[in-house]
Amino acid sequence: MPKRIRVAFQGEPGAYSEQAVYQHFGPTAEPAPYPTLGDVFQAVEEGRVDYGVVPVENSLEGGVNETYDLLLQSSLKVRAEIELRIIHCLIGHPGTRLEEVEVVYSHPQALGQCRGFLRRLGVRQVPIYDTAGGVKMVWERGLKNAAAIASKRAAEIYGMMVLAEGIEDHKENYTRFFVLGTADAQPTGRDKTSLIFALKDRPGALYHALEVFATRQINLTKIQSRPTRRKAWEYNFYLDLEGHRLDPLVDEALKELNEKAIFVKILGSYPRANQ
Amino acid sequence: MPKRIRVAFQGEPGAYSEQAVYQHFGPTAEPAPYPTLGDVFQAVEEGRVDYGVVPVENSLEGGVNETYDLLLQSSLKVRAEIELRIIHCLIGHPGTRLEEVEVVYSHPQALGQCRGFLRRLGVRQVPIYDTAGGVKMVWERGLKNAAAIASKRAAEIYGMMVLAEGIEDHKENYTRFFVLGTADAQPTGRDKTSLIFALKDRPGALYHALEVFATRQINLTKIQSRPTRRKAWEYNFYLDLEGHRLDPLVDEALKELNEKAIFVKILGSYPRANQ
Repeated sequence: MPKRIRVAFQGEPGAYSEQAVYQHFGPTAEPAPYPTLGDVFQAVEEGRVDYGVVPVENSLEGGVNETYDLLLQSSLKVRAEIELRIIHCLIGHPGTRLEEVEVVYSHPQALGQCRGFLRRLGVRQVPIYDTAGGVKMVWERGLKNAAAIASKRAAEIYGMMVLAEGIEDHKENYTRFFVLGTADAQPTGRDKTSLIFALKDRPGALYHALEVFATRQINLTKIQSRPTRRKAWEYNFYLDLEGHRLDPLVDEALKELNEKAIFVKILGSYPRANQ
Repeated sequence: MPKRIRVAFQGEPGAYSEQAVYQHFGPTAEPAPYPTLGDVFQAVEEGRVDYGVVPVENSLEGGVNETYDLLLQSSLKVRAEIELRIIHCLIGHPGTRLEEVEVVYSHPQALGQCRGFLRRLGVRQVPIYDTAGGVKMVWERGLKNAAAIASKRAAEIYGMMVLAEGIEDHKENYTRFFVLGTADAQPTGRDKTSLIFALKDRPGALYHALEVFATRQINLTKIQSRPTRRKAWEYNFYLDLEGHRLDPLVDEALKELNEKAIFVKILGSYPRANQ
């Protein structure tokens, strides 16, 4: 029997992160649930699992700040990206009718993605730490006037009922995950590279930093700023670009960026997710 | 008696946003609490208040996504910025001892800013919609093993006790607020301008857009990307720069940006907050 691949994720069984694990590693993967994103990083760092899967951004709600901050501190490498189509369900006890629901529990990102639906329903929203955990809570406490937003699979796991399916405001709802390991991936010809850098605060600093990519026609797929947490209004930039860090042009650009920046941290190069 | 200035804010009395109102408008201001940030925008748009004060970013936790998304849709102008030093307190019932606390309620941003303190305390964190609202909840429900993270003033309002003060992980903890009105501010010589723009996805697009500022030595104080919510992995850029939109150089740069961008929306020009 082949060795099963153990993959850490944050949340309860039925979480979208667990779906991402199966989508990427196949049905023989062994997802290992951890309470926090920090725990997922630690499990990979200490070799208790083979890989970790963490959400990095959602196409509607934007970046997952905690993941960005953990990536800055960790020595782990990004070795793959996963894009998961998110289909949210409103989940309650069997027999609950939609019009009886007064309170809806879910992760703030999921509540944000269903803002329009929840407004029309006129319910009170209660943010909690994860989506499948909300289903578990409504189930455990036997709450009849409450529901949770989570995946269909979370409803199945707890024997709960889907009251409404596909309740997200926009169908272009994808979450992007990083697969973390101790090394990144070899070039495939269709790769991306993620990095973090910081610049001195002076006119044109970001412009001159981006020059190293523009002059080489390297496409940036994402740029995001995050506070450094050291000094107020000082930012690190998180950048994704097309190409592998071992591609000669990308390698050249990154060396030139190194000379212009206060620091550059390469998070890893990995094959682009299929779109 | 002079007319009192009515200013909408999101949250309960004792919220940091209410403190920001007093810091900017003085003790005679009349803060008006609203449940959501959307309600604050609406109250100003419909003339039910003179101004609105909304959080836009925190120096540790980064941008407030909901405010960014509302600014994109609204016709209101940014007419001032406020920087408020945030000092978080752990607040419980009089008589509660720190070691009895098992659950801590607060806004996700506040929990994030006290991550280190909460980890050492070993408590369960429960995110809720606002900080002062957490104090009100612990008070109303008479919870003895629970506490909330909020301002000292929130403790005073509900007759609750400060169990620990200054519990934020970093003292460089400031929240920046925008003052919203129907028009922006006149030039003072020490101004900032905020805008949103979108670009076609092609190599060098952001680089060429930033060129309009770099060649004129216009300093950018902040750049942030946000999903457009129309198409997956398409972003709008939120930019703050030094200067007033009526300054000849800034005016020139913005006209040139208009030619390069899919759209440019000027949120307003306003005096820089004192630092």
